[in-house]
Amino acid sequence: MTASGPVRVALLGCGVVGTEVARLLLTDGAELAARVGAPLELVGIAVRDVTAPRDPVVDRALLTDDASALVRRADVVVEVMGGIEPTRSLLLEAIASGASVVTANKALLGQDGPTLYAAADEAGVDLYLEAAVAGAIPLVRPLRESLVGDRVTRVLGIVNGTTNYVLDQMATHGLELQDALAQAQELGYAEADPTADVEGHDAAAKAAIVASLAFHTRVSVDDVHCVGIMGVTADDVALAAETGHVVKLLAIAERAGADGVVVRVHPALVSLGHPLASVRGAYNAVFVEAEAAGELMFYGRGAGGAPTASAVLGDLVTVARHRVLGGKGPVESRHADLRPRPVGEAVTRYQVQVRVDDRPGVLAQAARVFADHDVSIETVRQARADGEQADLLVVTHAAPDAALASTVAALADLPVVRAVVSVLRVEGA
Amino acid sequence: MTASGPVRVALLGCGVVGTEVARLLLTDGAELAARVGAPLELVGIAVRDVTAPRDPVVDRALLTDDASALVRRADVVVEVMGGIEPTRSLLLEAIASGASVVTANKALLGQDGPTLYAAADEAGVDLYLEAAVAGAIPLVRPLRESLVGDRVTRVLGIVNGTTNYVLDQMATHGLELQDALAQAQELGYAEADPTADVEGHDAAAKAAIVASLAFHTRVSVDDVHCVGIMGVTADDVALAAETGHVVKLLAIAERAGADGVVVRVHPALVSLGHPLASVRGAYNAVFVEAEAAGELMFYGRGAGGAPTASAVLGDLVTVARHRVLGGKGPVESRHADLRPRPVGEAVTRYQVQVRVDDRPGVLAQAARVFADHDVSIETVRQARADGEQADLLVVTHAAPDAALASTVAALADLPVVRAVVSVLRVEGA
Repeated sequence: MTASGPVRVALLGCGVVGTEVARLLLTDGAELAARVGAPLELVGIAVRDVTAPRDPVVDRALLTDDASALVRRADVVVEVMGGIEPTRSLLLEAIASGASVVTANKALLGQDGPTLYAAADEAGVDLYLEAAVAGAIPLVRPLRESLVGDRVTRVLGIVNGTTNYVLDQMATHGLELQDALAQAQELGYAEADPTADVEGHDAAAKAAIVASLAFHTRVSVDDVHCVGIMGVTADDVALAAETGHVVKLLAIAERAGADGVVVRVHPALVSLGHPLASVRGAYNAVFVEAEAAGELMFYGRGAGGAPTASAVLGDLVTVARHRVLGGKGPVESRHADLRPRPVGEAVTRYQVQVRVDDRPGVLAQAARVFADHDVSIETVRQARADGEQADLLVVTHAAPDAALASTVAALADLPVVRAVVSVLRVEGA
Repeated sequence: MTASGPVRVALLGCGVVGTEVARLLLTDGAELAARVGAPLELVGIAVRDVTAPRDPVVDRALLTDDASALVRRADVVVEVMGGIEPTRSLLLEAIASGASVVTANKALLGQDGPTLYAAADEAGVDLYLEAAVAGAIPLVRPLRESLVGDRVTRVLGIVNGTTNYVLDQMATHGLELQDALAQAQELGYAEADPTADVEGHDAAAKAAIVASLAFHTRVSVDDVHCVGIMGVTADDVALAAETGHVVKLLAIAERAGADGVVVRVHPALVSLGHPLASVRGAYNAVFVEAEAAGELMFYGRGAGGAPTASAVLGDLVTVARHRVLGGKGPVESRHADLRPRPVGEAVTRYQVQVRVDDRPGVLAQAARVFADHDVSIETVRQARADGEQADLLVVTHAAPDAALASTVAALADLPVVRAVVSVLRVEGA
């Protein structure tokens, strides 16, 4: 495994992140070589269209549209092209030919990480993925290495900057979601097609990757209970503020029972006193709770060319060092063999807003429904009563999500209930 | 380097952290073995007094007072005994005999890290030190590995829980420092002899280690400008609150000029809007600013048996994996070769509180002194005027620390100035 000369690096993709990686390889070459123990030689950049305009920092002589040939002459393949195919095939080809891989591809890892991990393991090469979760925030390495002697019980985080920005704008300016989203698109904080962000798919892919690492098991994006932010209203956000909360899109992975893990992405109420409440704009933050370490938080920019390139380069240097000096990073760890469990087994709290007839006895009827489902109530607040109808805002104590969901369904069936206006989980207590 | 059987682990020290490490090795043996790829065998625990009472989790048959013989039959030496000597000699002996070292000893590393790094490098063994800085918070690994392809410009943190707790109590209950400290001692948050904490020596050792790692250079504790919290008064804390600040003991390491680095530990005013302001009690938090990654924060418990043991075990698993599978962690990196520079070269802001004669023209005289030293003033506030004397509270714009210090000295010489009541730097803007 010991290279005699430079380490040959192939770059797949030359968008914002790829261009930044190329720039740093050029400007910091000497420093990177000192850290690796050998020079890093960029041997080619695979792009779809070699004739398209590029940043002048990109050496056009390195461009190629034959990615397959490129990966076969590299020691390390850096993948920042994204997408599922042909990316997966290219990375498997790279691994089979003995190259180590650094990837920022959360969609691919969230969907089919195990195939890649297994291939890398078998070929004895490294597969590094720091950039795939939470941009520049070192999270993968702490989970795979620093906490490897501890037992993680819960991971709770804001891992999508676009939705965090949108919710932040709703809270600050009282906007409806569509208006905040349109504004975010204008400013470039949200893409023209924001589906992957607002529907929670991006966060779900990251949650699957983080859960797999934190709990030493295999979680795919299909195991993640995922609800995006499209149902969050200006009224939800305003009511949250009245009770000292903010609405955040959270990704949560936690142990459930003896051998289960529940992974979920959904909007939730977070108390203003919780450090996650103050994570603003496009920043990301991840809380990790471990038995011995206690509560840890990691905070930083969750996306963007330069931060993602920083994470990619950190991995590239580590992986290249292994080529020069021998050694290998941690492989996929799935000895814990926990099973993904349905969201009904998560223990959480609900805030339920129901619109009811404004007359005596209604609260008693509603309270009866909670009791029938073994759900205890922490607070009830009546709002917006007009003599004809009123809103009850009920916050429960912790209970299994399934029991809470059944309670809400039963509430909806009560004759005195006109509508279930909103249901939000309360997290981070 | 490949071990055929179990990895032999020697434990030096069996206090709170050592006992916790022994407990985790016992209870999580199977899980740790899965992560390492071979069982970890605790072959001995070196203590001063083998007859002293111990937690029942400690196997008395493993106790020995011959640390020197013990380290020579180990693959990995875990050092949690603390102190400079005989610890340094024992670790050098361990390294010379081919053992890798995991240490939590900030005092030793802060004072003489380079000797140990060089010895480990020469012997081709690992020297891991996550537990030496900020307890369980993964900080060393991100600096040594995740950010290795980036350029750190500044590290700013709260790295001593005792002083943070004391300052927190002063702010919350309006206590004078001595009273808050006495209370902390009663509750076990401060030691009977709190010198190392309150004088800033503990934070300075950590700052030296972090600066060395972040800037790829050699910084010893002797290069750190260090002022503890003993000069902080209840009045300082109250005035800080009036202007929307808190007083925190900060450790700061930053680039100065083209090839310099300034490392300092001192109380400072931090704006309430800054995430470090909300770090309460015995928690630690470290901000890292890097060119590509931007602003990162790491937060968690900075001390305590279990959190420190978590960090030790994370290192132990990594180091043991290297014994089983080959490979080696990053060595001391000092290719950047920055020079430690005096605190006068740091660029900072001052808040100066001077007691002056309460009569017209005094402000003009004081302002003249700032101008003479090329220091511009951001705000001036007059407080506590009683017709005879008044306090001026001046906050400057950023300027070299040397210019700010000269300004303060010149102010003290003004005939209208009765006393310089307090000088605090303002950081984290």
